[in-house]
Amino acid sequence: MKEFQLIERFFTGRSSPRRDVSLGIGDDCALVEATDNKSIAISCDTLVEGVHFYKEIPAHALGYKSLAVNLSDLAAMGAEPAWMTLALTLPEVNESWLSEFSDGLFEAAQYYGVSLVGGDTTRGPRSITITINGKVTKDEALTRSGARNGDWIYVTGTLGDSALGLDILRGKVEVNAADKAYFIKRHYYPTPRVLAGQSLRQLATSAIDLSDGLVSDINHLIKSSHVGAIIDVDALPLSLALKNAVPIDEALGYALTGGEDYELLFTVPEAQKGALETSLAHTGVTFSKVGQITTGEQLKLQSNGAAFEAINCGFEHF
Amino acid sequence: MKEFQLIERFFTGRSSPRRDVSLGIGDDCALVEATDNKSIAISCDTLVEGVHFYKEIPAHALGYKSLAVNLSDLAAMGAEPAWMTLALTLPEVNESWLSEFSDGLFEAAQYYGVSLVGGDTTRGPRSITITINGKVTKDEALTRSGARNGDWIYVTGTLGDSALGLDILRGKVEVNAADKAYFIKRHYYPTPRVLAGQSLRQLATSAIDLSDGLVSDINHLIKSSHVGAIIDVDALPLSLALKNAVPIDEALGYALTGGEDYELLFTVPEAQKGALETSLAHTGVTFSKVGQITTGEQLKLQSNGAAFEAINCGFEHF
Repeated sequence: MKEFQLIERFFTGRSSPRRDVSLGIGDDCALVEATDNKSIAISCDTLVEGVHFYKEIPAHALGYKSLAVNLSDLAAMGAEPAWMTLALTLPEVNESWLSEFSDGLFEAAQYYGVSLVGGDTTRGPRSITITINGKVTKDEALTRSGARNGDWIYVTGTLGDSALGLDILRGKVEVNAADKAYFIKRHYYPTPRVLAGQSLRQLATSAIDLSDGLVSDINHLIKSSHVGAIIDVDALPLSLALKNAVPIDEALGYALTGGEDYELLFTVPEAQKGALETSLAHTGVTFSKVGQITTGEQLKLQSNGAAFEAINCGFEHF
Repeated sequence: MKEFQLIERFFTGRSSPRRDVSLGIGDDCALVEATDNKSIAISCDTLVEGVHFYKEIPAHALGYKSLAVNLSDLAAMGAEPAWMTLALTLPEVNESWLSEFSDGLFEAAQYYGVSLVGGDTTRGPRSITITINGKVTKDEALTRSGARNGDWIYVTGTLGDSALGLDILRGKVEVNAADKAYFIKRHYYPTPRVLAGQSLRQLATSAIDLSDGLVSDINHLIKSSHVGAIIDVDALPLSLALKNAVPIDEALGYALTGGEDYELLFTVPEAQKGALETSLAHTGVTFSKVGQITTGEQLKLQSNGAAFEAINCGFEHF
């Protein structure tokens, strides 16, 4: 497997130097340093060709997105990114593919201050597994289980763009060239809300990142918190491009169930609403109030104060 | 992917409880606790079907071995196992396979005190990626780079059994039924030398685990340490079963280049030789002195004081 050792040069020595990495890639293990007042947040995501991405995805986008989806999990805990391992399985060694993939990966790694401390490269059907580690001050981590009756529900950014981008790539939807580039970029290059997550640590009662789609993800949150929720679909943040591209019911369908937004959904008690404005303003991230936590472990969608007919936007299974 | 959520029940809640796991599987990240006086050792290994294991491997053995090879990396650093993530890619959901795989995995996890804190399960060609975390007192980790001229070279256990086991499975070699079971067990169920590694922390100057084969692995070590080495092939520890099964030259070939022994190779200065006997005796692990570190960045194999003709035992490429 000499060939496979060669590809390590695309990954070794390119990481952001971090003072808490005592020993990087090259020994049996890496050695990293934590401190007594911080917990370590750990998450792991696999992307498999044909399941999580198409063969045609540009290598740069795949490298970037592989890390971004893991960073999104750290963001949802309010953790600061620190270290990662990369398990890369490839059918063959293609230098230009590897060069672009690693450029995309390290673009995200450098921006968010993540050091690559280990990994494994193997021959096989293409897949990428990243395990990421972050740090968060003890007892300040945001979990899914802290939402309380009466808390307001917020989301960052806009929803549904990524899912429409995927449908454009699949040839299911056509839009003009400028919008096409926008939606595909939103699908390939999600923005993990790392700073927003950190700024929510002392304000939010719970948080989750939107990977499967708002309806599915908020159901995880209310189940963990033993609460219910009302979502006002009229308040869902939609991009102008999305509203222009498809009828409103379809746009809401993308926003509610499309998935891969990698925005944060979080809950804030009434008393913290003011502090929230100040705190998130620093990060430059937009956010919208989209509903409220209730008792009873059920999710209700409303529009103009009436139950929202989910069937209108093309999905049934929630 | 409801089906794939079902399989999580084979893995969730079965981990060894550890006081340093504040939040286990089920949120965006797990939360674990480290302390100021310990470094965290991180390693990551992928096993791909058809490359690292055959389709026919019993699921229990695959589960056990997937973790054992990662534990071997921790052992080589002298680290105490703590947490792991598991990325499992499977072509289909087969409950009896999953039940056996998870039994094998947790057999190793419970024995070595490892808690499963996260993971991802995806559909695709079968592969397993484990990222493992251990703890080691600061500045006591064993690396590959500390060997010095004059240090004695040791290995734990016996070498070559696993590689012969693989050749039996491949149909290349035939042995009697009792020996066949022994060799295959050595191939499927390697023993990571976790306690031995920990007991070497203040004695050994360097260590590496034997995964690729002694010749290949000691070359990594001498390269990292900028030293040379002489190995006395007559001193290599061979099991009685191996010596009985094949001619001595073939047995030495398995021991020198077979790989997958997952024993430790380590170096100890003359002054620590006595302390080593006492220290390793506690762990019940056998060990053998097989050579000495030299100057000059070269590996030399000797037999009866003369250069050993490697060609005799069926390999050329080192």
